[in-house]
Amino acid sequence: MSHEIDLKNYEIRTDLVLESIENSQNKIATTTETFGKIKVTSVVIDEESSKLINKKIGSYITIEFEDVTDSENKNEVEEIFIKELKKLLNHLNIKDSSSVLIVGLGNEKSTPDSLGPKTIDNILVTRHLFLIDKISEGLREVSALNPGVMATTGIETSDLITSVVREVKPSFLIVVDALAASSIARINKSIQITDTGIHPGSGIGNMRKEISKENVGIPVIGIGVPTVVESSIIVYDTINYLFKHISYIKENQNKNKLIFNRTNYLEKIENKNLTDKEKRDILGLIGELSDRDQKNLINEVLNAVNYNFIVTPKEVDFQIDKLSSVLASGINRSLHDENCVK
Amino acid sequence: MSHEIDLKNYEIRTDLVLESIENSQNKIATTTETFGKIKVTSVVIDEESSKLINKKIGSYITIEFEDVTDSENKNEVEEIFIKELKKLLNHLNIKDSSSVLIVGLGNEKSTPDSLGPKTIDNILVTRHLFLIDKISEGLREVSALNPGVMATTGIETSDLITSVVREVKPSFLIVVDALAASSIARINKSIQITDTGIHPGSGIGNMRKEISKENVGIPVIGIGVPTVVESSIIVYDTINYLFKHISYIKENQNKNKLIFNRTNYLEKIENKNLTDKEKRDILGLIGELSDRDQKNLINEVLNAVNYNFIVTPKEVDFQIDKLSSVLASGINRSLHDENCVK
Amino acid sequence: MSHEIDLKNYEIRTDLVLESIENSQNKIATTTETFGKIKVTSVVIDEESSKLINKKIGSYITIEFEDVTDSENKNEVEEIFIKELKKLLNHLNIKDSSSVLIVGLGNEKSTPDSLGPKTIDNILVTRHLFLIDKISEGLREVSALNPGVMATTGIETSDLITSVVREVKPSFLIVVDALAASSIARINKSIQITDTGIHPGSGIGNMRKEISKENVGIPVIGIGVPTVVESSIIVYDTINYLFKHISYIKENQNKNKLIFNRTNYLEKIENKNLTDKEKRDILGLIGELSDRDQKNLINEVLNAVNYNFIVTPKEVDFQIDKLSSVLASGINRSLHDENCVK
Amino acid sequence: MSHEIDLKNYEIRTDLVLESIENSQNKIATTTETFGKIKVTSVVIDEESSKLINKKIGSYITIEFEDVTDSENKNEVEEIFIKELKKLLNHLNIKDSSSVLIVGLGNEKSTPDSLGPKTIDNILVTRHLFLIDKISEGLREVSALNPGVMATTGIETSDLITSVVREVKPSFLIVVDALAASSIARINKSIQITDTGIHPGSGIGNMRKEISKENVGIPVIGIGVPTVVESSIIVYDTINYLFKHISYIKENQNKNKLIFNRTNYLEKIENKNLTDKEKRDILGLIGELSDRDQKNLINEVLNAVNYNFIVTPKEVDFQIDKLSSVLASGINRSLHDENCVK
Repeated sequence: MSHEIDLKNYEIRTDLVLESIENSQNKIATTTETFGKIKVTSVVIDEESSKLINKKIGSYITIEFEDVTDSENKNEVEEIFIKELKKLLNHLNIKDSSSVLIVGLGNEKSTPDSLGPKTIDNILVTRHLFLIDKISEGLREVSALNPGVMATTGIETSDLITSVVREVKPSFLIVVDALAASSIARINKSIQITDTGIHPGSGIGNMRKEISKENVGIPVIGIGVPTVVESSIIVYDTINYLFKHISYIKENQNKNKLIFNRTNYLEKIENKNLTDKEKRDILGLIGELSDRDQKNLINEVLNAVNYNFIVTPKEVDFQIDKLSSVLASGINRSLHDENCVK
Repeated sequence: MSHEIDLKNYEIRTDLVLESIENSQNKIATTTETFGKIKVTSVVIDEESSKLINKKIGSYITIEFEDVTDSENKNEVEEIFIKELKKLLNHLNIKDSSSVLIVGLGNEKSTPDSLGPKTIDNILVTRHLFLIDKISEGLREVSALNPGVMATTGIETSDLITSVVREVKPSFLIVVDALAASSIARINKSIQITDTGIHPGSGIGNMRKEISKENVGIPVIGIGVPTVVESSIIVYDTINYLFKHISYIKENQNKNKLIFNRTNYLEKIENKNLTDKEKRDILGLIGELSDRDQKNLINEVLNAVNYNFIVTPKEVDFQIDKLSSVLASGINRSLHDENCVK
Repeated sequence: MSHEIDLKNYEIRTDLVLESIENSQNKIATTTETFGKIKVTSVVIDEESSKLINKKIGSYITIEFEDVTDSENKNEVEEIFIKELKKLLNHLNIKDSSSVLIVGLGNEKSTPDSLGPKTIDNILVTRHLFLIDKISEGLREVSALNPGVMATTGIETSDLITSVVREVKPSFLIVVDALAASSIARINKSIQITDTGIHPGSGIGNMRKEISKENVGIPVIGIGVPTVVESSIIVYDTINYLFKHISYIKENQNKNKLIFNRTNYLEKIENKNLTDKEKRDILGLIGELSDRDQKNLINEVLNAVNYNFIVTPKEVDFQIDKLSSVLASGINRSLHDENCVK
Repeated sequence: MSHEIDLKNYEIRTDLVLESIENSQNKIATTTETFGKIKVTSVVIDEESSKLINKKIGSYITIEFEDVTDSENKNEVEEIFIKELKKLLNHLNIKDSSSVLIVGLGNEKSTPDSLGPKTIDNILVTRHLFLIDKISEGLREVSALNPGVMATTGIETSDLITSVVREVKPSFLIVVDALAASSIARINKSIQITDTGIHPGSGIGNMRKEISKENVGIPVIGIGVPTVVESSIIVYDTINYLFKHISYIKENQNKNKLIFNRTNYLEKIENKNLTDKEKRDILGLIGELSDRDQKNLINEVLNAVNYNFIVTPKEVDFQIDKLSSVLASGINRSLHDENCVK
């Protein structure tokens, strides 16, 4: 069928470098550590891999975890996040005395896009105390900004940030944003930290200019959580799980009357791969398509009927509450002496 | 394949009677009227059809429309909603002097579930004025209640409502709730009005007991808007659009180099149906499954890997704002003399 | 002048029994303990004193403290609050296994009146878990209700509560409300706990029927914080401080060139009292009036010109946030085994 | 007594030029027009009067009105506000094609200080459409900014605004802020419009640098509503009403048994003035003080005991809602062709 239908090349939308790597066919080296139920994957994108996956050169850390509305999970994620953020600050040679401006991107009136502003609400701001010399040992000079979104300010967000950076002159920038994912598994269940800043098309708000060391002139740490996903990705993911599921069942159906056991089912099927012949049997012409063509076809169909919604889990309010609390508290504890932050 | 895999029968979750009818193979007579871009479908479920689709006996009106964050659409929807609500009040022989208690189900802290409470916020309440005889001509006796959800009150919502009904003794009840849909097309784009009340499993909050004339003792009008959908339904819908899409393209590809024209594409493909042979060619074993088995399989897979999320569009905050405004204003204008409500 | 002008007897509005005692000329025995900057005053109103100050027979505990937006103060107040609430539960012979319904009175959309609803938002509710037997050791059966206010429900709040009590059948009731004070010093700086419930005219919302053991049939613990005060009380308080101030200055002006030293000034002047002659000299006819007549005159004037506003400090949002957190956390820790509540 | 007590000169805090004029003993010409229950007072402060009352040279318009939670009042105020704002735009020779940046000062998390941010929420922003040339006839280029407050950003607000002005390059600036009043009568019942910008000490948030044509380089229109008042002003105002009240009663007590009739009482007593002798009789030493010394004394006392609270009416949430709606809608309708704004 791929020779019959001319599929436009829809860009699979993801802000997570980890997903770009997964989505590409290319081998890019990543390092993974596991802490209980939390997985941390680090990757350095060099010039060569940058071309392969179209992501900026720099360091990317992805923390993957389970539901943070569970307070035990939440606390564990915060500790790992602090460890990784401090490691990156160190790697960038940022000193304890360096001042920082923290920016919360997104629209606080739109729950799935409110991660940035809600994080800023709980940032410990100190710059005004430095201005009047009323500052205690152990505190760094921190300022914070909620620039709003272009639809409500009429101002390109990156221009607004650049003009404030010129005024405030921080040593570095931290930018917090809600992201788009290319996998249902990571929605509200991962944090990406990077020293490459924030890029066009990134995030939900769809900024048009990047915020990075190149155009702001100081290091920019981007911190993001994917909070939304396109419907087409849900469909594509499901078709993939479908293949693995059927493959697993075929293998196991003679051994065991109980067709499948849900405990850790995902792990069990993760490595099941069907041959092209099997795929064609199961999903016909669709199964015959390459991954990329499958995605393009699904995108084409959903866009054609106007149903390629970008969606978020119905529990988004509770999840964003907890995630913004993890980020704000984690940033506060990473930037200041922990004893000063309580 | 259907004889190889034992699919559990997952209930397709929908609170819209229109979708139950579509999902069933049965013929149930509906009446449809179109007003500009708005479609109104009425159906009376009698004893026989009640058994077929497992919905309560009574009248159901579904209003389908386009995005209400467009203010012109919003105003048109409100007018149609008023017309249909008044018609139902008439049909139930509810007099202008009959008192009413309006209940907003759902959790106001959870955006996709906040339709009920947000509607109540804008209801014109008058009962306290009747208590002290300070009431002007043209106003009906209206009281209102946000009972909260069981997770935050610890009280079964229907019990709470019943106890308040016993105290306030209204002549009839209006219950507003956010619903679950079984089609992505109707999310935040339809209103269902019914005289059958609200039922177990209905809504997002998952009440366990119904609220209906049978157990409350007075007529209960249920007004709902589907605000969420299960991921599995998105997948199923997409596969169906895929069939129609491919069928359309096959028919048209020789005639026209421009493979497809998106203008009103949905309408163009709506009646395309593939033969079973074609379905099997395109989607293999999956295409061979009956609709019900396809749904069951998708459900089984997504539940097995724990990704059968219930999702809502990322614009949910803005949509709920407008929808609750349509409902509150529409209810106010239907219950009182319009001149008193301004 | 008192014989020339016929002053109507304006009732000084206070919900704090401590202030009723202060405002009356009568001697009623109170017990006071001090913990750092926190003062706890207990009083048992018996039949005789009930008549004198027109407050219900029962126990009243008032905790007075400094600004809870300071987190150290906040933590100390919470500990004292827990101690006093547990003491009262004990005194009422309420067992660890007794179920409770907690009610938050007031309008959550009106900041100074939102203490009750905001407290309820953070109450640990368990009754629904008891219903399905999913409950761990150390947890009490707790349900919670935000009944709203009559202006938005059309339902007399006490009727609504009574009907829910009949349904839920708790062993006792805790009712949280924002109160009116008769002294500027106590606004957002005191908590009253009482076993007499909540009374007509109490609170900001102005309920018309009481909620007490007599009409609900179970013990009712009222917990309140004064969040508003009438303008006339600010004037009266100031005139009194004026007398004390002038008296202090007169005494000290010859000894000391530095007229006054603000450190702990309030304590220094607290016991200064002018003779009637001195009062007349300083404030003329006004100084000659009895306390009650002074209050009545101020009230009369402000009411006559329509400026007897009820006011709240401009920091009310931050104060209510912290106060509701103290109450919710304190109630949770008093009702359940502390280890279960974290 | 004035020679005995050394009163420090407390500055009476007001942001309303009208009150500065009233508080001063100087004659400054004002023009007053009345439209139903709305009073509009205009004054041009020239060099001479600027020195007398310490306000900037320029035009000031004050609109005084009754409670805007009454929708009829609200609509009338909006019409007058539009008329006066358009007049000022005209007076400043601002063309229909001139671009504007609208800034909402204040803290949206603090109700009495949230007028600016809440107004911005409803401003029709168009600059981003101009950037992409998607603009219809009749719309002006408008951008908007909520800069936050220094306590939460760590950045001097005027610096932040200046840096954004440099970036966005609007032709003029509109700054909306909540103000402090020096009279209880004007709280939430007046709007001041001025071409002099916003000044140090102005507003609730207490900015330290002014925002005016001098330091921003473009015309700055300041729009403010007094939402708070110091307790000491309530006391001072009341003492004044007390004088007038007693004076009125003395005059009328023989004629009429019914001591006073509240209808329009304020108007009736407004012109009552006591002689110094009478004042001394009524209020003793206090009555003998000059207005300024009376204010200073009250301030001194309340500050000494730490009770000079800044307060706001308890209905502040509802009033700010309506006031911000009047301002946003009024600004939108003044800046664009009314037909485009609906």
